[in-house]
Amino acid sequence: MRFIDKLLAASRGNDSLVCVGLDADLDSIPRSLLKSPNPIFDFNRAIIEATQDLVCAYKPNMAFYEVMGGEGIRVLERTIESVPSNIPVILDAKRGDVAPTSEKYAKFAFDVLGADAITVNPYMGRDSLEPFLRYEERGIFIICLTSNEGARDFEQMLCNGMPLYQRVAMRARDWNIRGNCGLVVGATHEDALPFFRYITPDMPILVPGIGAQGGNLEAVMAYCPDDNGERVIISSSRSIIYASRGSDFAEAAREAVIGLRRRINDLRRCRSRE
Amino acid sequence: MRFIDKLLAASRGNDSLVCVGLDADLDSIPRSLLKSPNPIFDFNRAIIEATQDLVCAYKPNMAFYEVMGGEGIRVLERTIESVPSNIPVILDAKRGDVAPTSEKYAKFAFDVLGADAITVNPYMGRDSLEPFLRYEERGIFIICLTSNEGARDFEQMLCNGMPLYQRVAMRARDWNIRGNCGLVVGATHEDALPFFRYITPDMPILVPGIGAQGGNLEAVMAYCPDDNGERVIISSSRSIIYASRGSDFAEAAREAVIGLRRRINDLRRCRSRE
Repeated sequence: MRFIDKLLAASRGNDSLVCVGLDADLDSIPRSLLKSPNPIFDFNRAIIEATQDLVCAYKPNMAFYEVMGGEGIRVLERTIESVPSNIPVILDAKRGDVAPTSEKYAKFAFDVLGADAITVNPYMGRDSLEPFLRYEERGIFIICLTSNEGARDFEQMLCNGMPLYQRVAMRARDWNIRGNCGLVVGATHEDALPFFRYITPDMPILVPGIGAQGGNLEAVMAYCPDDNGERVIISSSRSIIYASRGSDFAEAAREAVIGLRRRINDLRRCRSRE
Repeated sequence: MRFIDKLLAASRGNDSLVCVGLDADLDSIPRSLLKSPNPIFDFNRAIIEATQDLVCAYKPNMAFYEVMGGEGIRVLERTIESVPSNIPVILDAKRGDVAPTSEKYAKFAFDVLGADAITVNPYMGRDSLEPFLRYEERGIFIICLTSNEGARDFEQMLCNGMPLYQRVAMRARDWNIRGNCGLVVGATHEDALPFFRYITPDMPILVPGIGAQGGNLEAVMAYCPDDNGERVIISSSRSIIYASRGSDFAEAAREAVIGLRRRINDLRRCRSRE
């Protein structure tokens, strides 16, 4: 099944555009879990069990597993295995290198871990992403305009009269011959959103930055690429997984997802009535 | 000890600008090693033992270890441990993400693995690299102009009248307040090299692409940033580690390093005579 079909099936099945970022660390999870031999895995599994009927995707962040060394990779493998098979997993890795190296990164993400999609960095150009794009059934989210301050340094710089991130989006559209590309667009750039609605309406957009980073949900939903907003993936991590720091963390995460899903769906309904 | 001092000490001590890329995989190493419980580690250790008096650095490529899962991370840890403490290790990882994520990547590279330097991707701007730059004693090589075809897609695109890679180099110069930044410049762009000699003469340049990728060594050495060429790191992988596919692979790697070091040093001597 192609990534986009799996994504749309999950988002329709759960009536949700919410993606939960799985990037826990030992300093932030409830202390009661630290006695377990696998605290991060236990935490992730509880979050997944409490939210799997409410989300369209999960997004584990490679860095948070890599930092735990070889054991961390095993925690990531087990975490991905514990996601129900109908919910896509987007590996947030921002990889990209010369082709023989990108091949290894793609193999790890898709064949070893079994992720459904990955985030990649466009700086080194098309041939650096081709080993990912060759996986026709997986999703390749190209980082385009990010929610951090540093987006101003290069992403928003004018390149031949157009900001670099728009150049990236237009090239991504050219590279989307297999229909497996998406874009990463931070929620803090509401002015930039209409561009994507008109230039890349068929490409899913992964939107981090709602919650802790202060992105504007109303603006994001106003400029979804497609009319019913289904190609937008609203990713939130800290404000969900750490909604409570106590032993009720999983229920609190569930409540946080329900709240975010309701806010998003209210905005979608308002929009479809217009 | 600061990275640049460790690098210069190694390159003077071994009279060498050669960096050996450690990116072996099971399909390419001698078959005789496959019986061992740790074939990649045994291969790396033999390469390191055969070349450690001839190089200025080693450069393991993360992707080749990551693809082996948790076990691969342990092979990487053990490989880095087996590099003599006077030779710097540059982790080729091309990382870069929002700051809390980059913090984890930096912690993994520097605190967990003990690498002396890392390669990073500039696309997301300064705050995405700051968690790496904060490690004052480590080296941060910002990818700038790469040796692959895709360099044309964005790196060479004109941004406000100047190619993007030059914008990146100029920002890297601003970010080099702790004196720990370097640049990655592929050997296939000889026309671009004079720019770095004049704009970032104090920053070390990591030059991959000699050997298998067909870079021009003469041109690289003609435009070293400093007069005696010490701030250039000439990285080669396949043409050294796979110089022989037989059981004499370590001796063949040694011969290949000796040959490359001699070619480089001849060019340096010609230059200093001018």
